[in-house]
Amino acid sequence: MKKENSAPTMKDVAREAGVALGTVSKVVNGLPVGESYRIRVEEAIKKLNYQVNSYAQGLKANKTYTVALLIPNTQEPFFASLAYHINIALLRRKYRMLLCCTDFDLSQEQEYVKMAQQNKVDGIIGLTYNPNLVVEEDTPFVAIDRSMGPKIPCVASDNFAGGQLAAEKLADFGCKRVAFLRTGSSLNNEPNKRKAGFENGCLSRGLNYKMKILNDGEPYEEFEKFLEDHMQDGRLMFDGIFCVTDGLAHAVIRMLKGLGLNVPEDVQVIGYDGIRYFNNQEYICSTIVQPIPEIAGMCVDLLLQENMPVKPPLICLPVTYGAGGTTREKK
Amino acid sequence: MKKENSAPTMKDVAREAGVALGTVSKVVNGLPVGESYRIRVEEAIKKLNYQVNSYAQGLKANKTYTVALLIPNTQEPFFASLAYHINIALLRRKYRMLLCCTDFDLSQEQEYVKMAQQNKVDGIIGLTYNPNLVVEEDTPFVAIDRSMGPKIPCVASDNFAGGQLAAEKLADFGCKRVAFLRTGSSLNNEPNKRKAGFENGCLSRGLNYKMKILNDGEPYEEFEKFLEDHMQDGRLMFDGIFCVTDGLAHAVIRMLKGLGLNVPEDVQVIGYDGIRYFNNQEYICSTIVQPIPEIAGMCVDLLLQENMPVKPPLICLPVTYGAGGTTREKK
Repeated sequence: MKKENSAPTMKDVAREAGVALGTVSKVVNGLPVGESYRIRVEEAIKKLNYQVNSYAQGLKANKTYTVALLIPNTQEPFFASLAYHINIALLRRKYRMLLCCTDFDLSQEQEYVKMAQQNKVDGIIGLTYNPNLVVEEDTPFVAIDRSMGPKIPCVASDNFAGGQLAAEKLADFGCKRVAFLRTGSSLNNEPNKRKAGFENGCLSRGLNYKMKILNDGEPYEEFEKFLEDHMQDGRLMFDGIFCVTDGLAHAVIRMLKGLGLNVPEDVQVIGYDGIRYFNNQEYICSTIVQPIPEIAGMCVDLLLQENMPVKPPLICLPVTYGAGGTTREKK
Repeated sequence: MKKENSAPTMKDVAREAGVALGTVSKVVNGLPVGESYRIRVEEAIKKLNYQVNSYAQGLKANKTYTVALLIPNTQEPFFASLAYHINIALLRRKYRMLLCCTDFDLSQEQEYVKMAQQNKVDGIIGLTYNPNLVVEEDTPFVAIDRSMGPKIPCVASDNFAGGQLAAEKLADFGCKRVAFLRTGSSLNNEPNKRKAGFENGCLSRGLNYKMKILNDGEPYEEFEKFLEDHMQDGRLMFDGIFCVTDGLAHAVIRMLKGLGLNVPEDVQVIGYDGIRYFNNQEYICSTIVQPIPEIAGMCVDLLLQENMPVKPPLICLPVTYGAGGTTREKK
């Protein structure tokens, strides 16, 4: 008889179910056993209220069923949404997720990777712009938006197609002279392809275009100056603007209003990301929508997929256009 | 001699440092040892590149240095900001955080608590509206916004004072007839006190007020109907509205515009939470600002504080007012 007040062990479960200890172990670890055995073990686990000791399990199987997410923060809506969908995708597969908000802190990210390694997490999903982050090739790591090396898969939206789609939409809505405004990291990264895609779209549709690209750390005021420099007799020399993110679009729309211009009557604006005001409410501006649930699912699939002989280095997922009141859609 | 290609053990560190194994163990676990011993051990750890096995550590010390956060999602800006600040507060104290987005799924929350227990996390910080969630009294649990029992601390903003402040601000800005609009859980919870605080403020400042409170699941359209019912000759019978959240305020402002009313000229609106459009940009509306970093810090402090004879059952942290363009501030 089992002593009272002590937690049931795997042995107790085996005795209760009338099976070998190894059979219980297989069931607990999700390995195949005969259906009737599985049912008997599961019933015994339920009856005894046996709790799997994940730590002991982690030590033995060298699996923690835990994945770490490195992300700058969860306050920017794009990051918040990514964190949510990655979390849900992992939980659905019975994985736990360690959240590491890195706050763009270059020196701390490496510590989180190390912390993650000490934890023996099964892998890392990371969105980082730290050029010095060392991730060994054999680390189970899936990157978002910026490649971390040839053997580490990178998942992103199809940024080139997104930039092109923005140009095409502005052309469709009657624009003739457009501008592209960008901030962001000067490091090689996928979102930088929005520029090339936009240029390509402008050229193929015969749109006149200008670019204003800020370097790391330059303030948004530079855009205000750029816009002012392109005013003539109270009119803006552009009738359409593509902003590299919805966050920038939101700031630019305020600047335009400050210059006495109406959006979308005087100038149409398209952003990128697909940010909504609140869950399920409308987009904050007309936008190129990133497929965030699909990006999240792809990261999790790639990370947890075992025995994949060659991991694809770059996966670009299709974007869509979302109307958000800052463009003049054709009726 | 240590074999090549095998990870260094605690014994290797002890040999390298010339100290007893117990001394290494103390240093690794943060227990006091003589300064010179600590330095020798740390140097040996560095030299051998010894990696603490957190799982083995977790089993032995019964500490995982991991805390689970239960939160509905990270897409609603208030939740996103809470998750961020709790994450930062934990990481600063060298704790890891498991994120569990529960998606308001009543049946799954208990599973996450159980999952957390199987993990042997050191504690849980939880924001949940699941009335059936079972959290035993001795579980290290800190609740946000809704009490989980007399022995489990609950941290919230001072919701009563916040409601009162909203009424006082509307009075200060010249309102005479105001309304309070609320959605939310019918369960006992701290945010419900916004209503009582607002009533109190209205009474003390001589404001006429009406309330419209939706039950769980009733659609926002009911507010639109309520507003329409209080229109007369194209004018609204209220000159000020307090909405229970910024999310609701945002939706209500759209409804008011749809009715041909200008905000703040015809009617002033105050929300609750302190949501900003993007990090560091302006508030989305005039608002009662929750002290989110302080709420996060208090949750972490209460959870990790050891040997506290009596945990305080309810902690209310002070709110402030933030102007966001939907009120007529006195110059």
